[in-house]
Amino acid sequence: MKKYCFGVDVGGTTVKIGLFQTEGELLDKWEIMTRTENSGENILSDICQSLQEKMREKGIADEEIEGVGIGLPGPVLDDGTVLGCVNLGWNKFNVEEKFSHLLGNIKVKAGNDANVAALGESWKGGGKNDRDIVMITLGTGVGGGVILNGKILTGYNGGAGEIGHMNMNDDETEKCNCGQYGCLEQYASATGVVRLAKRYMETNSSPTKMRELGNDITAKDVFDLAKAKDAGAEHVVKQMAEYLGKAMAAVAVTINPQAFIIGGGVSKAGQYLIDAIADVYHTHCFQACSRAAVRLAELGNDAGIYGAAAMVIQE
Amino acid sequence: MKKYCFGVDVGGTTVKIGLFQTEGELLDKWEIMTRTENSGENILSDICQSLQEKMREKGIADEEIEGVGIGLPGPVLDDGTVLGCVNLGWNKFNVEEKFSHLLGNIKVKAGNDANVAALGESWKGGGKNDRDIVMITLGTGVGGGVILNGKILTGYNGGAGEIGHMNMNDDETEKCNCGQYGCLEQYASATGVVRLAKRYMETNSSPTKMRELGNDITAKDVFDLAKAKDAGAEHVVKQMAEYLGKAMAAVAVTINPQAFIIGGGVSKAGQYLIDAIADVYHTHCFQACSRAAVRLAELGNDAGIYGAAAMVIQE
Repeated sequence: MKKYCFGVDVGGTTVKIGLFQTEGELLDKWEIMTRTENSGENILSDICQSLQEKMREKGIADEEIEGVGIGLPGPVLDDGTVLGCVNLGWNKFNVEEKFSHLLGNIKVKAGNDANVAALGESWKGGGKNDRDIVMITLGTGVGGGVILNGKILTGYNGGAGEIGHMNMNDDETEKCNCGQYGCLEQYASATGVVRLAKRYMETNSSPTKMRELGNDITAKDVFDLAKAKDAGAEHVVKQMAEYLGKAMAAVAVTINPQAFIIGGGVSKAGQYLIDAIADVYHTHCFQACSRAAVRLAELGNDAGIYGAAAMVIQE
Repeated sequence: MKKYCFGVDVGGTTVKIGLFQTEGELLDKWEIMTRTENSGENILSDICQSLQEKMREKGIADEEIEGVGIGLPGPVLDDGTVLGCVNLGWNKFNVEEKFSHLLGNIKVKAGNDANVAALGESWKGGGKNDRDIVMITLGTGVGGGVILNGKILTGYNGGAGEIGHMNMNDDETEKCNCGQYGCLEQYASATGVVRLAKRYMETNSSPTKMRELGNDITAKDVFDLAKAKDAGAEHVVKQMAEYLGKAMAAVAVTINPQAFIIGGGVSKAGQYLIDAIADVYHTHCFQACSRAAVRLAELGNDAGIYGAAAMVIQE
């Protein structure tokens, strides 16, 4: 194993980059802009340039680089083919081949960003002592990643870990971004929690401080009010936890992970959220799956660069 | 790789045994009784004796046996520990160690019977051309097995693939054998289909030939009548397919398999059943998972001995 590697996490606005020792230490991290114009044609060359500048700055030769891992906001097949990344303007192509060519044939491993973040948490974060984990990222949407024996499970068409799109409610009338109705994401994401809060206010006349915040209410507001024992907010958190805990029980009878790791912006609600979810999970789960832990993620926004590095190191 | 191996499938009534060439050919198969008395203390020694007799009969030496795979009706951890097999009278112990000792230190690999049958179908049956499959066995209960890259996924406590215990209905008032309410098994097993048929007859006054069969109605009757366009039976099959297809959609966003393989007694309804399930699955599944095939199992009652042999050969 060579001495260094890079972990790259490509988002629609910025690209996060980390320089790692292959022993596992993060040596440096920084960000560059994601230039999405012209179908995102500059994104890979911008990253390439940034990596080469860092290598010059640190006096690192190409021969000392084990490889570059890259997480991308879209489905990625095991052979490194992206099927399209809407937020980057990309269509289908083999990222590993193209990026490796740009880098002078340094090895490249590509993965879906939610899967890569899950690998990061499995390697150095909330799941570092667990064999098999499922990470659930509660952000604008609900992302997920399945790590089995330290490896990302990609699935046949890159759809493994997409538990944000598990159907949880046959009676939902609003459409999810994916085109279906009643996906977990519609209830357990930051926007989902806000939707539930607004629905509560529309259909319930009980007093709740949520009303004072009106249309600007955020998921954080809902959790803060629930912690302060506002009955309406507590009800909304309970609803959200019901959907999420039941989805986890369905995941559990499929793969029976050792731990669920909960990350993303909504997870800043902390142990209060974990307790609410774990309670529902343990009420509904199949007995053999009852020993799964439910834990907070630990790496925050760095999970992606850690996981990207891990793809290269652990290959 | 040595020339021969055995695949053993232990049920509560009989033990099925197959002698295989490690190249994959089934040379001989037979059954012995399962003696469950005295906490099933004779089961392993009975099997051992039967294997040794067969080896004498065929003139096969210990040194020509690669190993013995054994499928068991209960959870089995990756290290060969059974957590208890109610139908055999067994408590927790390490089957691989004990059975290998009895066999004069021939290698033993143990697995849960539903998982082992799934491995058999993946190796030589309905999933032989697929990388990752989920097998669903519709029998008295609903069993399941997840095969990823040709290997059984066991899970942290042997609970992987237990999709018969996925919660599908919050309003269920009858208890599943597992202690929960609304498990898939309560609707998609042979007994589940009969339950749905009886419920239909109790709550619906429309004419249906199902009534002529009364309390003795079987899942096969329901499917036969549905194929003959009896509206009541068609309704029941549709209900059953709704539960099963939706459960498969939940499995799909977790692991995105290449194929679902449907086996067990209920699957004798054939392509009619597959079409009903696939229709629901494709209506509800997340887009990236829509290319999963839904297929019939092919090995019938031999899936277990094939899978048991595969555990030894493919290790």
